[in-house]
Formats: sequence, structure tokens, C-alpha cells
Amino acid sequence: MSDAGFARLPAPPYYAVVFSSRRRGDEGDGYAETAARMEALVREQPGFLGAESTRGADGFGITVAYFDSEEAILAWRRNAEHTAARERGRAAWYEHFELRVAKVERAYGWDREES
Amino acid sequence: MSDAGFARLPAPPYYAVVFSSRRRGDEGDGYAETAARMEALVREQPGFLGAESTRGADGFGITVAYFDSEEAILAWRRNAEHTAARERGRAAWYEHFELRVAKVERAYGWDREES
Repeated sequence: MSDAGFARLPAPPYYAVVFSSRRRGDEGDGYAETAARMEALVREQPGFLGAESTRGADGFGITVAYFDSEEAILAWRRNAEHTAARERGRAAWYEHFELRVAKVERAYGWDREES
Repeated sequence: MSDAGFARLPAPPYYAVVFSSRRRGDEGDGYAETAARMEALVREQPGFLGAESTRGADGFGITVAYFDSEEAILAWRRNAEHTAARERGRAAWYEHFELRVAKVERAYGWDREES
């Protein structure tokens, strides 16, 4: 299955939240558990379409979450458990992060098996 | 320097090209050299603003390149050396990729040292 890790999205337009971050070096700080919980929780958010995420050995990571509307993004932002996780991220987990909200206007995919 | 790896961007609006990909397992296939060359070349592209990129040990990676206009994205797409690299990517380097072009509407950053 060569498409593991990829979000299966409808045709544009839709919205993307690009979150790039550098983790602090700490292990055993609860990050992995909260990240897994947020990944499960966002799937319950109406308007959530999918997400893709990766992090290199240097601690720099990019997560892109896709939503069908700005309203869905704002509702996810207001989620109480997500808000608490963001506060913990600033307090403990991240050195630096950048968040960018964008409207996807076009998209193109390619798969070796289908080409 | 906690902001290594992050693009330094102007205030929105600007454009993002989100490229997520899964690499084939091959080593020594010229990928690293071409990726480094493309990274240098895109910096010469008028309208290029910056990029962020990471790939996990599982071969799944995300690169987000930022441009000041759709015209700059199209000009980069037409670059002959970049076009040849994309063809080589399909022929040799990738199992699957997704490309999404989006207009960044708002952005927010945070740094531990500045907080």
C-alpha cells in the first residue's frame, strides 16, 4: 500500500492548516500520548478532512491538517481538550512553531502503481 | 538558534505549495544531490519566499514551498531543470506524491526564547 500516510481528500477548494514545529529534545514528556489523542480527537471534528504529518530525526516536523471550511478550523481551535494541549505545547514540548492557514485551490496526485 | 529550518516569511497573503511524498527505499539513486540542487535553484526563482521540509525514517516527507504569487509558482514549474527533476522523481524516486497549491490567508508564529 503505497499511499499510507497520505490524506484522501475531496476535490478543492478546502482549507489547510500547516503546522511546522521544532520539538525540544525531551523524551517521556507526554508528547506522544497527547499527539495520538489529538489525532483521534480531530477525526471527530465536523469538517475535518484528513491530515499528513512527519518529523525528522532533528526534531523538525510538519503536520498539515485539512478542513472543509474556516468554521471547522475555528471550531477545532475552540475545542477545550485541544486548547489545553496547545498550552502544554508552549509550556513543554516546542522550541518554535509556525502556523499557517491556507485555502487549497488546486491539487494533483501521482502513484507509481497507477501510472 | 531555535528557528533553524523555519522559513522567514512576510505577512500574508502569499502562496504555499504543499508537496507530500513517499520515497522508494533506494539509496545512492541521485536523489539527495538533485534535492540539494533544486533547493539552491528555487532560491533563484523570483517570487520564492522560503521553504520548510522534513522526512521521517519511514520515507514519508512533506515539503512546503512559499511564493509571493501564482505566477512565481508557474514560472518555477516551467523551469527546465526543475521539470527534468520532476520527471526523474516519477521515474525513480517516489512511490506516491500529492501536490496542493494554496493561498495562505493568515499566519502565527511562536518561539520559546521570545515568549
